[in-house]
Amino acid sequence: MNQNFRAERGYALELDRLDPLATFRDLFVIEDPDLIYMDGNSLGRLPLAALERVNSVVSNEWGNVLIRSWNQGWWEAPARIGEKIATLVGASTGQIIVCDSVSVNLFKLTMAALTLRSKRSKIITDSLNFPSDLYVLQGCVDLLGNKHAITRIGSLDDDVTPDLDSLYDAIDEDTAFVTLSHVLFKSGYLYDMAAITQKTHQMGALVIWDLCHSVGALPIELDACQVDFALGCTYKYLNGGPGSPAFIYSNKNLHENFSSPIWGWWGQRSPFSFDLDYVPNPGMQRFLTGSQPILSMLSLEAALDPLMQAGIQNLREKSMQLSEYFIKLSDSILTPLGFRLGSPRNSSLRGSHISLRHPEGYRINRVLIDKLNVIPDFREPDNIRYGLAPIYTSFTDVWEAVERTRQAVANKIYEEIPQDRLIVT
Amino acid sequence: MNQNFRAERGYALELDRLDPLATFRDLFVIEDPDLIYMDGNSLGRLPLAALERVNSVVSNEWGNVLIRSWNQGWWEAPARIGEKIATLVGASTGQIIVCDSVSVNLFKLTMAALTLRSKRSKIITDSLNFPSDLYVLQGCVDLLGNKHAITRIGSLDDDVTPDLDSLYDAIDEDTAFVTLSHVLFKSGYLYDMAAITQKTHQMGALVIWDLCHSVGALPIELDACQVDFALGCTYKYLNGGPGSPAFIYSNKNLHENFSSPIWGWWGQRSPFSFDLDYVPNPGMQRFLTGSQPILSMLSLEAALDPLMQAGIQNLREKSMQLSEYFIKLSDSILTPLGFRLGSPRNSSLRGSHISLRHPEGYRINRVLIDKLNVIPDFREPDNIRYGLAPIYTSFTDVWEAVERTRQAVANKIYEEIPQDRLIVT
Repeated sequence: MNQNFRAERGYALELDRLDPLATFRDLFVIEDPDLIYMDGNSLGRLPLAALERVNSVVSNEWGNVLIRSWNQGWWEAPARIGEKIATLVGASTGQIIVCDSVSVNLFKLTMAALTLRSKRSKIITDSLNFPSDLYVLQGCVDLLGNKHAITRIGSLDDDVTPDLDSLYDAIDEDTAFVTLSHVLFKSGYLYDMAAITQKTHQMGALVIWDLCHSVGALPIELDACQVDFALGCTYKYLNGGPGSPAFIYSNKNLHENFSSPIWGWWGQRSPFSFDLDYVPNPGMQRFLTGSQPILSMLSLEAALDPLMQAGIQNLREKSMQLSEYFIKLSDSILTPLGFRLGSPRNSSLRGSHISLRHPEGYRINRVLIDKLNVIPDFREPDNIRYGLAPIYTSFTDVWEAVERTRQAVANKIYEEIPQDRLIVT
Repeated sequence: MNQNFRAERGYALELDRLDPLATFRDLFVIEDPDLIYMDGNSLGRLPLAALERVNSVVSNEWGNVLIRSWNQGWWEAPARIGEKIATLVGASTGQIIVCDSVSVNLFKLTMAALTLRSKRSKIITDSLNFPSDLYVLQGCVDLLGNKHAITRIGSLDDDVTPDLDSLYDAIDEDTAFVTLSHVLFKSGYLYDMAAITQKTHQMGALVIWDLCHSVGALPIELDACQVDFALGCTYKYLNGGPGSPAFIYSNKNLHENFSSPIWGWWGQRSPFSFDLDYVPNPGMQRFLTGSQPILSMLSLEAALDPLMQAGIQNLREKSMQLSEYFIKLSDSILTPLGFRLGSPRNSSLRGSHISLRHPEGYRINRVLIDKLNVIPDFREPDNIRYGLAPIYTSFTDVWEAVERTRQAVANKIYEEIPQDRLIVT
């Protein structure tokens, strides 16, 4: 790309013609070809397979097979789908299960980690972590009587890159666990999972990685990095659908030593014997609580196939090409208009979305959505995020996104938008 | 019914003709009219409205509107659907929200109740409660360092009726809260919510009612009974679909005094400001944690309409007629074959399912499902449960269920089934 780069649309078309993953886009429902969807990092597009699967689950499995479906694949779905996700994150069998939300699962893992490191009082995280993760940690500390302290590495709110020196310095022998977002939700910065996990283990602490913004977009090696715990959502790059259930990874080496804090019959060793006393399932099922949302769960199951077929390494390569192309275009077209890059320039330090920052970011994002048929999203105070989902985002999408962003600013179309903030997800 | 009762099928047809709710059955997907579905107390049938709604949510709201749907009704769904459920359980506005599973929600309410009654050490429940509820309580006690004791009223495992004297005696000034299933999952016994709540309050304790087996089948008066907390699933008589999210009721009078133990951005006062410190939403949203499964959530929303239209009082009347008819038929046809009633005979003490007990219950249940196109379910050791969902169960369904059960035993068809237990949900 470096040699031949041209800012014209024709170059994007050329890149699309050469893209070995280009046909995967056909596996998604795209009714409006003019819509430039740049928010796969918030809600992945609808895979055709998920559409068909949900139709069949509702009409046939619920409508006709009824309760019998629990014995024909529903009951095992959390573990079965966990094994599919395992292939995308470098996990061997029996270590991932799908259930509940990220917040509920982080609660479980936090409590598990504090049980395993009961004599240590420090929890280390980063102020650039997704706030919900911070809230969950705060809730756990409160619930346990404020015996633990949360060290929030003091990166500035809008830093692109976290303060790694402070992070490494903070991890010590009183640290129970470190928890970080593998890819930061604002800037897209990608932490070095291997190095941080290693440092954490050197100090005898555990690690909990939040994979929400990395899973499905780049290779992850949970086993190879000897990660203790991880979790992630499934509705971003995994395309599971709105609010599809999250997943938990727990390293097999730890399984014997803790239980999940929320007990329930799905986590019981023998749920249908209806014993009155809880005995945890020895495997990942211990993290289950009650009945899981089957429509959302099986939508996710179908959505994973295209990703597995494309191959996570191939997806990462295309993701880097897309984002490098985005940055090149942005450098030449948008920087002169007052934008600056809010993401690391080095691809090896970046996930699959690009933040552009502009003082009028809020209104530019809104006018892109309302008038120019581009959907990025906005994060305070001035970040416009462009999600590049390599399974369906084309190079032409990238070109259009940059070009229409240019139009919004060059033609001052964004001034049509009032300055008052609305809720923007 | 008493005067004219006849055991012939013609009488069932007559009752169906006279049933003012008969046409509601047409609002459900029933492709095999010969299938006698008696398991609406485990998984309610598919409402046509839910089928259509899920299709539209997937194809249009997810497929085309994409992330924008969060601002066009998805974000508010938990509270909006809570208000619909409120109309079925006697709750005024702002006290019910839909989210997560029953087990996760019981965890939240248990922790909230223990915060509100922090000086009291006793939790009272019943061994006839659904085991998952017992497990959650045990997990909470464990998590808080075993400072609390669970008193499990010692009803025998297969008692039809709980030991009320022991229950009333157990509630004392050291009781933090009492939690019971409003309708018991095995026998269908219906607790007196008003009386038990009153007794509990006299002792200064709180009450948590599990409405899983009562909501949608009979009138509940949470506000009038001054209930503190309640919760329930939505996939039984509410027909929300497999694993559709549960609901929580929290009396307004308590809202100022506690927070939910699992913090997360959906429960934060201003989730999109991405503040680093948690401040709970002052309303029911405090019980929310992370993203909810939207397909399952909106399926539930559509499913509630037929119930609201039918009217909960009318549904209760039909439910009692169905079950009284069932018992009359069973008395005359099945009792001579070795069955005995495992549910209260008095309708005012019974929810909407009937347990029949038979030493060969396991095999009879299996042969009904595998060979005779009837779907009841089985609970150890010898209970066959027949769920009567008044919104779609007909009197002819009841007649067929009893007649085919007779065939299974009179003709010894059940002997075709091996005696080894399979998992039966």
